[in-house]
Amino acid sequence: MSRALTVSIDAMGGDAGPGIVVAALLKAIQRHADVQFLLHGDEAQLAALLAKHTKLKNRVTIRHAPGRVAMEDKPSHVLRRGKDTSMWRAIDCVKQGEAQLAVSAGNTGALMAVAMFGLGIIEGISRPAIATIWPTMRGQTVVLDVGANVGATEEQLVDFAVMGEAFARVILGLEHPTVGILNVGSEEQKGSDAVKGAAAMLRGAKLPMAFHGFVEGDDIAKGTVDVVVTDGFTGNVALKTAEGTARLVGLYLRQSLTRSLFGRVGALIASSALKTLRRKLDPRASAGGIFLGLNGVVVKCHGGADAVSFASALDMALDMAKADINSRITADRRSISASQVPA
Amino acid sequence: MSRALTVSIDAMGGDAGPGIVVAALLKAIQRHADVQFLLHGDEAQLAALLAKHTKLKNRVTIRHAPGRVAMEDKPSHVLRRGKDTSMWRAIDCVKQGEAQLAVSAGNTGALMAVAMFGLGIIEGISRPAIATIWPTMRGQTVVLDVGANVGATEEQLVDFAVMGEAFARVILGLEHPTVGILNVGSEEQKGSDAVKGAAAMLRGAKLPMAFHGFVEGDDIAKGTVDVVVTDGFTGNVALKTAEGTARLVGLYLRQSLTRSLFGRVGALIASSALKTLRRKLDPRASAGGIFLGLNGVVVKCHGGADAVSFASALDMALDMAKADINSRITADRRSISASQVPA
Repeated sequence: MSRALTVSIDAMGGDAGPGIVVAALLKAIQRHADVQFLLHGDEAQLAALLAKHTKLKNRVTIRHAPGRVAMEDKPSHVLRRGKDTSMWRAIDCVKQGEAQLAVSAGNTGALMAVAMFGLGIIEGISRPAIATIWPTMRGQTVVLDVGANVGATEEQLVDFAVMGEAFARVILGLEHPTVGILNVGSEEQKGSDAVKGAAAMLRGAKLPMAFHGFVEGDDIAKGTVDVVVTDGFTGNVALKTAEGTARLVGLYLRQSLTRSLFGRVGALIASSALKTLRRKLDPRASAGGIFLGLNGVVVKCHGGADAVSFASALDMALDMAKADINSRITADRRSISASQVPA
Repeated sequence: MSRALTVSIDAMGGDAGPGIVVAALLKAIQRHADVQFLLHGDEAQLAALLAKHTKLKNRVTIRHAPGRVAMEDKPSHVLRRGKDTSMWRAIDCVKQGEAQLAVSAGNTGALMAVAMFGLGIIEGISRPAIATIWPTMRGQTVVLDVGANVGATEEQLVDFAVMGEAFARVILGLEHPTVGILNVGSEEQKGSDAVKGAAAMLRGAKLPMAFHGFVEGDDIAKGTVDVVVTDGFTGNVALKTAEGTARLVGLYLRQSLTRSLFGRVGALIASSALKTLRRKLDPRASAGGIFLGLNGVVVKCHGGADAVSFASALDMALDMAKADINSRITADRRSISASQVPA
């Protein structure tokens, strides 16, 4: 019953260039036997990279794109003048139905703008969101929005809850994901009107999700709930604060171990422990930013991605497309709207 | 020229009870030879604790307060019915001029409500804020607001910048503290209207502060600026997310060291490293929440405080009162308002 999927890839997006994309494709073709890949970017460069790997020959098609979106390009600029870029072309193939999903390691803001413009938003959802998978003491938690929007109304927070819950269900495989709204206290009367309003709507919703209520910042790492819902401003600050804290702890740890274990031995142990730590802790390492709410599947691999994380992003995007996550989101959102008493 | 100061203490506020307050006083009387202390709480209990320490006899006066604010009490409830509590009485002594500063380890929301009601807000400031000192790679950074308010207008963010900068100058001893506004990107066009408006006001301000512009979540731990300004919702989430992350990293570290150093040796080293880490990292360990913007100095020691951190809170509050931080804040805020072109 599963249709053959085609992945559209922006090969020029990441800091490391298209080399890591090709390396990721060598992994992906083995894991996904029936999938085709369209590679957008500089034809000469891509052809030279692919020439070394005959295995990729029948699975990968190059589509020449002369332009490239830079990390510092403003989304509005890319929307006006970016039609020849590898990013634009990658999204356009999904729009034209040639591919079902797109992956890019490029400029996040530009990718969201191009994807919104090209693909449009799922029926019933007012704004897309970027979700990330956060490592926790109990496993993994989906956190969204981590930066697609600057704020969020109560309706948008409900959208995020529906999208995050669908993601946790179909991708993380949880039967009844618990959902919490990020707030400054767990009591019902705390917080902004938006979070209180969204909580009231979710409490009344009839869905497979288990609405937990409010959670606080430290509940993310505790893994108190499976899905943490927040506006894009708060989510982005929380994500980057966590990254900064992890790095700070790493520094202190190195200092403390180097002192307590006498120089080199301590330093050696510290760097091995820190390596494990860093891999486990970078919330973006496994897949990157998952764009939810678009008519099409788009995954943003982080800019500093290597072949391993680009391959993870491809896996994630393929899982989402296979599970047809967007149909779940549409159905769930409709069911919540239907259960609301009109004001 | 320094007047003799009196500190008003809520002795019943913390989880550990008044024992740690008395232990903290034994340190404080040595560090602050000319300061008097008023201790509010259960007279019998406090008298029994003080009886063991003759050194405290001439420095500490007990003021009986039959009631106690519980951690779960709502601020509105305490405002209506809390007049007999040790917290209320501690603030009331500052209001009556018997003391110049108050310290409590009790319920934060209730303490802010009682302090605002009792002391009022400094002229020119629209809302008080809670500041905290955050450990960074470069030393320490003041972050505010971390929870006094749920949101913040651009004027309020400017208030926070003025208060945080005054704090960094007079308490941390920085001549020209750098100030940044927390945002989702460092570019001028990013963020909510409130952060953009506040940045525009601060760019035009004539003050000893060096306005850096926008900073992101990971800049806090990097120590990019000396003062990070944000609304109370975002600040509270960031603070708690950092605490959660530090704890998560600690867990991973323990696992990783225990594995790599074969059982007991690893566990031993891990717990010593973690202890150092925890002390350095708990942003509240050194002093607690600093209430800025009130007519009077109030410091909130965290609920789980021990004698060391309660003594730090006393030191901090005394430093603030001695430096007359509130006069600096009033003058600076007036100077910014004067430099704005009326709309």
